[in-house]
Amino acid sequence: MVADLTPGATPRTQLRRLPEKAANSREALEAVLDAGLIAHIAVADSGQPYALPVAYARDGDRVLVHGSTGSRLFRLLAAGSPACLTVTLLDGLVLARSAFESSMHYRSAMVLGRCAAVSDDAKAAALDRLVDHLMPGRRADLRPHTRRELAATLVLALPLDECSVKVSAGPPDDDPADLDLPVWAGVLPLRMTCGVARPAPDLSADLPVPAYVRTWTRR
Amino acid sequence: MVADLTPGATPRTQLRRLPEKAANSREALEAVLDAGLIAHIAVADSGQPYALPVAYARDGDRVLVHGSTGSRLFRLLAAGSPACLTVTLLDGLVLARSAFESSMHYRSAMVLGRCAAVSDDAKAAALDRLVDHLMPGRRADLRPHTRRELAATLVLALPLDECSVKVSAGPPDDDPADLDLPVWAGVLPLRMTCGVARPAPDLSADLPVPAYVRTWTRR
Repeated sequence: MVADLTPGATPRTQLRRLPEKAANSREALEAVLDAGLIAHIAVADSGQPYALPVAYARDGDRVLVHGSTGSRLFRLLAAGSPACLTVTLLDGLVLARSAFESSMHYRSAMVLGRCAAVSDDAKAAALDRLVDHLMPGRRADLRPHTRRELAATLVLALPLDECSVKVSAGPPDDDPADLDLPVWAGVLPLRMTCGVARPAPDLSADLPVPAYVRTWTRR
Repeated sequence: MVADLTPGATPRTQLRRLPEKAANSREALEAVLDAGLIAHIAVADSGQPYALPVAYARDGDRVLVHGSTGSRLFRLLAAGSPACLTVTLLDGLVLARSAFESSMHYRSAMVLGRCAAVSDDAKAAALDRLVDHLMPGRRADLRPHTRRELAATLVLALPLDECSVKVSAGPPDDDPADLDLPVWAGVLPLRMTCGVARPAPDLSADLPVPAYVRTWTRR
């Protein structure tokens, strides 16, 4: 694959290592962001960077994350501290004939920029978007957000202006000298799967698992 | 659960948010680190933090990661730039009766500190440890690392000195006022599962999938 860059790539997000893994499209970026549930946001506080796991959702040309107004790192993010949001989907283990060529299949999206807090009057819609991404179909079952809930929640938006996508796929890329070794080589696919839904202990028995939950069989 | 801290916790890793989720033991820390395959390392370059996905392995009281000697961020890490390594295992979706109380089950470990490059004479053993963690049983099938492979690989060690662990589990924690709403509530478990191993296209047909690969049915 040619070492093309994702639209929105800059010298900072240009893939210097393994550029053949750079996926060359906005669609690839959106596909990774839309397939994940968890991102890690990097933000620094007093010179110490942190990698913070967060739930997120893509909303058009931005990514939304939410957290508590009481979170120190979220307040730093809301203040516009430089941030990096990374979503990594692990797709498999690549068993090459050497440790050196052994690797993983993955799809990873990285977004650099500064977050901005979503304004109070847009906060409910942003939270709805998060629910729609994380639990599609669920929103119609939920009551409206209360004023107190909205006040306690910080929603941040990070624009998709400076991004990169990296996709690792395909069979092991062994050194030709290793091909005759009597060692099994190949790929073991990995994926996130759903188990059986467990009702809350205080749930009344006449409420069945919603149909939309059963569509979440693979994430 | 009491708001106790992980041994090795400092004011920087003390959980300020949701301290009831802090898991109070070194065992909890090691269990999370030993269950994961991918970590995200935060490191800053010229004021811009990055969250970089990496394969890793716990090796006693340190975490090992490896990368290319050509990677800019790995060279920064090797030079002792402040770092944060986070491992997050997503265990489920918590469907509460409100969006506000909806959340996820997860186990997350965060390690703050500075990496040091593993010396040349310890590098092969460190890479072996990575293989043993990521692909248990595999190492006996692999030839020794070559001198050139070792020279091209940077292995970094991050001590488990300043750590925190956060575990979110249990049923939805709904507002009592919401308990009578006619909405299904509960937990949908998620886990990483293995698919069917795919042999490399150039593999000779008489090499079966190794028995150890079949033990990796759940990660």
